Amino acid sequence: MGQNKKFAVILSGCGVYDGAEIHEATMTLYAIVKRGSSYQCYAPDVEQAHVVNHLTGEPTSESRNVLVEAARIARGEIEPLSNLDVAEYDAIIFPGGFGVAKNLSNFAFAGDACTVHGEVEKAVQTAVAQKKSIGALCIAPAIIAKVLGNVNVTIGQDKPTAQAIEAMGATHQKTTHGEVVVDEGFKLYTTPCYMLDASIVDIAEGAHNIVKAMLDDM
Amino acid sequence: MGQNKKFAVILSGCGVYDGAEIHEATMTLYAIVKRGSSYQCYAPDVEQAHVVNHLTGEPTSESRNVLVEAARIARGEIEPLSNLDVAEYDAIIFPGGFGVAKNLSNFAFAGDACTVHGEVEKAVQTAVAQKKSIGALCIAPAIIAKVLGNVNVTIGQDKPTAQAIEAMGATHQKTTHGEVVVDEGFKLYTTPCYMLDASIVDIAEGAHNIVKAMLDDM
Repeated sequence: MGQNKKFAVILSGCGVYDGAEIHEATMTLYAIVKRGSSYQCYAPDVEQAHVVNHLTGEPTSESRNVLVEAARIARGEIEPLSNLDVAEYDAIIFPGGFGVAKNLSNFAFAGDACTVHGEVEKAVQTAVAQKKSIGALCIAPAIIAKVLGNVNVTIGQDKPTAQAIEAMGATHQKTTHGEVVVDEGFKLYTTPCYMLDASIVDIAEGAHNIVKAMLDDM
Repeated sequence: MGQNKKFAVILSGCGVYDGAEIHEATMTLYAIVKRGSSYQCYAPDVEQAHVVNHLTGEPTSESRNVLVEAARIARGEIEPLSNLDVAEYDAIIFPGGFGVAKNLSNFAFAGDACTVHGEVEKAVQTAVAQKKSIGALCIAPAIIAKVLGNVNVTIGQDKPTAQAIEAMGATHQKTTHGEVVVDEGFKLYTTPCYMLDASIVDIAEGAHNIVKAMLDDM
């Protein structure tokens, strides 16, 4: 199994409803370090699509920056995604959360007709070109499908999302807690996490399983 | 070892510099569920002392509410601390982060002359009166010391903080990563986490060790 590998972790804010899902992001960082590898966090330096009050679930009139909020998860140790040089890493990995579908893309609003942020698109395409591994948790496989098209992924069991993914040219595989779908051609690894009705222990398991699967193939 | 125990997790916002430390909070929730117990999150419904841009480390002109921001960590499943009935729980536990020293108290600004938020003080005093267990990570032991006085705690090895804790009438024990100090009389458990220069694996270990120690004694 690979050790001392370098992961670029791409965050989309801080909080499930308008940013990166906090448990998925934290468990991804934990899994990477626990398995003897290291990470650097990145996020795009853009305004969030909106800000959601996580107590009420309602949008607010505030505006917040994706990079600045993601820095909360990264304890300040984060760089703008525009600085990412994929060549310096063995893998890139995307925790989930609505931020992926609202800030890294507009999948939450446009479904299979969405567009993906240029820096994210470039990171994914460069990773494929350089034969680096790509990991995507929860809803993140949807934007990988948009960028790459004919990939084999999972987001768990949510039918509308699976249909949107297939409409973008990808194949969706149904999975349950902790399962990882591997697309060997694209070195792409996906796992459902909170796209299922999951506990925090399921999230830890999913994050550990995907990071282990990625490292096992390095 | 205790199982199916109920923990009230008291959060102080969302983000190390002005709220609850995200990794400590997440790992505390994980440790509780992993060991077969359950949690409910609480936070006081008050404005944060200030908002810190976690990218630059500088305060901003924004204002945010502690309960609303803590809801990001709790995925919306959180209640105002004023609703906490300690009798319904086996334990209360405080993850760290500057929010403990800025929002749950003013320890960050006033040191040993600080005051502690009335709802926090009541939760701690009630827990002692009802012989419930109390857990405190990172900087949180400082506010327990303020409320209870003559307790035996650790915040790791930071001298000025240890001195402030002793000035409040408590005894400080030096510890390193993952160690838990137990004050049997008060059923009080403390561990240093990010008060030390720690990795996210150290935080997971600290959170698991403190939850295990609490459950072992139930």
